[in-house]
Amino acid sequence: MRARDLAEEYPLVQLTDDALTAARLIADQRRPGVVVVDAEGRPVTVLPGSQVLRFIIPGYVQEDPSLARVYDEKGSAQACISKLEGRTVKELLPPKEKRYELPKVSGDATVIECAAMMARLHSPLLLVSDDDTVHGVVTTSHLLKVILSTTGKAP
Amino acid sequence: MRARDLAEEYPLVQLTDDALTAARLIADQRRPGVVVVDAEGRPVTVLPGSQVLRFIIPGYVQEDPSLARVYDEKGSAQACISKLEGRTVKELLPPKEKRYELPKVSGDATVIECAAMMARLHSPLLLVSDDDTVHGVVTTSHLLKVILSTTGKAP
Repeated sequence: MRARDLAEEYPLVQLTDDALTAARLIADQRRPGVVVVDAEGRPVTVLPGSQVLRFIIPGYVQEDPSLARVYDEKGSAQACISKLEGRTVKELLPPKEKRYELPKVSGDATVIECAAMMARLHSPLLLVSDDDTVHGVVTTSHLLKVILSTTGKAP
Repeated sequence: MRARDLAEEYPLVQLTDDALTAARLIADQRRPGVVVVDAEGRPVTVLPGSQVLRFIIPGYVQEDPSLARVYDEKGSAQACISKLEGRTVKELLPPKEKRYELPKVSGDATVIECAAMMARLHSPLLLVSDDDTVHGVVTTSHLLKVILSTTGKAP
């Protein structure tokens, strides 16, 4: 079995897409993040939900979360939404040197090769792509399932 | 809305539980990991799927995933499974100083407080607990959903 057979569809966004739409995609699809691609469809990085939160929650509240208690819930949620309005996905991303290394394998990577890459990068997901073709994403749990289901018996 | 209202049930394992059973739990429930609790039910850390992979994939293959290509798939999967056999969850965990900080809030934390904690620790999930009661886990996507659904209109 190869990485391209394991890859599952995963939400993709472009760098120029609307930031609020990307945030809603993460929220609606119950995903930990989305894969960001450039205009040619080449994968750039992963935008995790926690990065969206970093962008919308004021820095001093991140430093001291107990400050959040003094906020009115509805008012602060609206302030968060308005921070995303009119922004692009590119603006949400951390500066290039602080971006998440995108764990990536080619379509013909083996199961153990995928596992080794995830283990090394401590990543819960792995992008499977060849040049400008994104095959999808493999999650740790899916990979564990494949490894643990492999037995010595004839298939 | 408070953290305890947002908390969703999440798989818990004890330090003394069987490692292979914990790995199967991650695989079968399609979760990024499980929450580890001690004998008194107090949360200790999170065991992510990637840590299970770090334990079962030989170090030299993690360093150079292309080495994985020379392995026979069935044989190497069996070698991975046998590494888990007879081990406990505690043995799977990294040494204490290298464990994941467990992002945690109390049951009465506000939505923004949860978001601030996740943003600060770059975490895709947050444990909600009071003393020895684990209420469950809040994911980034769920929290984003709550924030993005909050509008100025009357509820």
